[in-house]
Amino acid sequence: MLSCLVDGVISEFVPADDRGLAYGDGLFETVAVAGGRPRLWQAHMDRLARGCARLGLAPPAQELLWREACTVAAGQQRCIVKIVLTRGSGGRGYVPSDDPRPLRVVSAHPWPEGLDEVRETGVEAVVLETRLALQPALSGIKHLNRLEQVMAARELADHPGKEGILLNTEGYVISAVSANLFVVQGEQLLTPRMDRCGIHGVLRDMLLRDHKARCERRRITLDLMADADEVFLCSAVRGIVPVLAVDDMQWHVGPVTRRMQDWRAALMEVA
Amino acid sequence: MLSCLVDGVISEFVPADDRGLAYGDGLFETVAVAGGRPRLWQAHMDRLARGCARLGLAPPAQELLWREACTVAAGQQRCIVKIVLTRGSGGRGYVPSDDPRPLRVVSAHPWPEGLDEVRETGVEAVVLETRLALQPALSGIKHLNRLEQVMAARELADHPGKEGILLNTEGYVISAVSANLFVVQGEQLLTPRMDRCGIHGVLRDMLLRDHKARCERRRITLDLMADADEVFLCSAVRGIVPVLAVDDMQWHVGPVTRRMQDWRAALMEVA
Repeated sequence: MLSCLVDGVISEFVPADDRGLAYGDGLFETVAVAGGRPRLWQAHMDRLARGCARLGLAPPAQELLWREACTVAAGQQRCIVKIVLTRGSGGRGYVPSDDPRPLRVVSAHPWPEGLDEVRETGVEAVVLETRLALQPALSGIKHLNRLEQVMAARELADHPGKEGILLNTEGYVISAVSANLFVVQGEQLLTPRMDRCGIHGVLRDMLLRDHKARCERRRITLDLMADADEVFLCSAVRGIVPVLAVDDMQWHVGPVTRRMQDWRAALMEVA
Repeated sequence: MLSCLVDGVISEFVPADDRGLAYGDGLFETVAVAGGRPRLWQAHMDRLARGCARLGLAPPAQELLWREACTVAAGQQRCIVKIVLTRGSGGRGYVPSDDPRPLRVVSAHPWPEGLDEVRETGVEAVVLETRLALQPALSGIKHLNRLEQVMAARELADHPGKEGILLNTEGYVISAVSANLFVVQGEQLLTPRMDRCGIHGVLRDMLLRDHKARCERRRITLDLMADADEVFLCSAVRGIVPVLAVDDMQWHVGPVTRRMQDWRAALMEVA
């Protein structure tokens, strides 16, 4: 951790009775900082606000979070800013307080090695045994209940250098462990629905918005993926990453993936 | 909070980068203290050990936790001791560190008002809209991903004084918000399986062990519940609590429920 603000004060500690720790009762955002500036900021703030509405949390002022993000990232050309927002302390057991005081943790972290190279070279992946449960009430938002992803990441330790593909408990393809996923068929872009599990990725949603006519959200099977022309991952931090293989399925880095990388590069100039 | 030890040191703070906060990557136990002594201790420790095995955490020494529980509860005849065990800080994103250093938070809390009276009078309940997702890989253990229970508790705020009954996403009855559930048919005791969601309650498992011949774990529907002779809740902290109503279904406090209360009272003398 490079730097950390807890409720606006320099600190590396949070109250031991915080509901984020007790129950995962909160949300987070992982924001890429490039050229010294937090990127895709408004999209991150919009997702955080949607998560707050779902959990019944008051969203903090965006200007406040912007100032705190810039403060922790000060002096860094590239880094990751993580924002954690919890329901704070208080309440009786699972029952939240009538007057919750949300806790904000805004911290900066070094830019991970290898993140940029992989956009050129692409990644190989395996389908993981860990499955995502179907929970429509919590799907889409970036909440703090992430044991499924931790278990998936632990499983992936047996496959060094590979990405992991997560299916839901019904066997449909949902995402990578920390990125959304697109399947290319000709000129069409297919991506899993996030109505029962998974996270609405910030870059995913911008891609869907900017390429509406050729995108479709649908249930995606491994068979459909096997027939795809191209497959790529999509993440606010990692960008558009070509997928070269999933188990014994293989693809080349294709023209649609490269065009989406150009789209994202143009987006990052301005957003 | 009456008193709190973090890794054995008096403190009310935990590191802001703890994985318990970031991902709910950990476990907890809620232990009743009566007569100045933590109760059903070995059963709590056994469940914690099973949770550690599932998550790949090294369980702390039981003698250490016992000493810390007794320390935070010192001077209290009755209170609640909460133990939180996380994977600690470190790792890269969801990927845990190769050498995790688990964090222990052991804290004492006042005994909640009204807990004891309700064992005599019984409770009324409503079936909640919040459903439990099916996740066999995490079911049974008392992990820190508890947003479903928080949402259920929020929903219950519209029904003051009532208990909430949770179904899974397939519509089967699983539990109350913070207690297990038994349905009595004649002399037989039925309780939901915890193979796909729910928590293996400490008192539930002791009841199943001590009354093996007349107990059955099975899928329980609301229709089956409607035909029951008696219904009761079961929790290490709350004991055996008669259920008088669930929505428009009604029961009297029956002889089997009272016998189970006697069984539990005898158990609490020694455990």
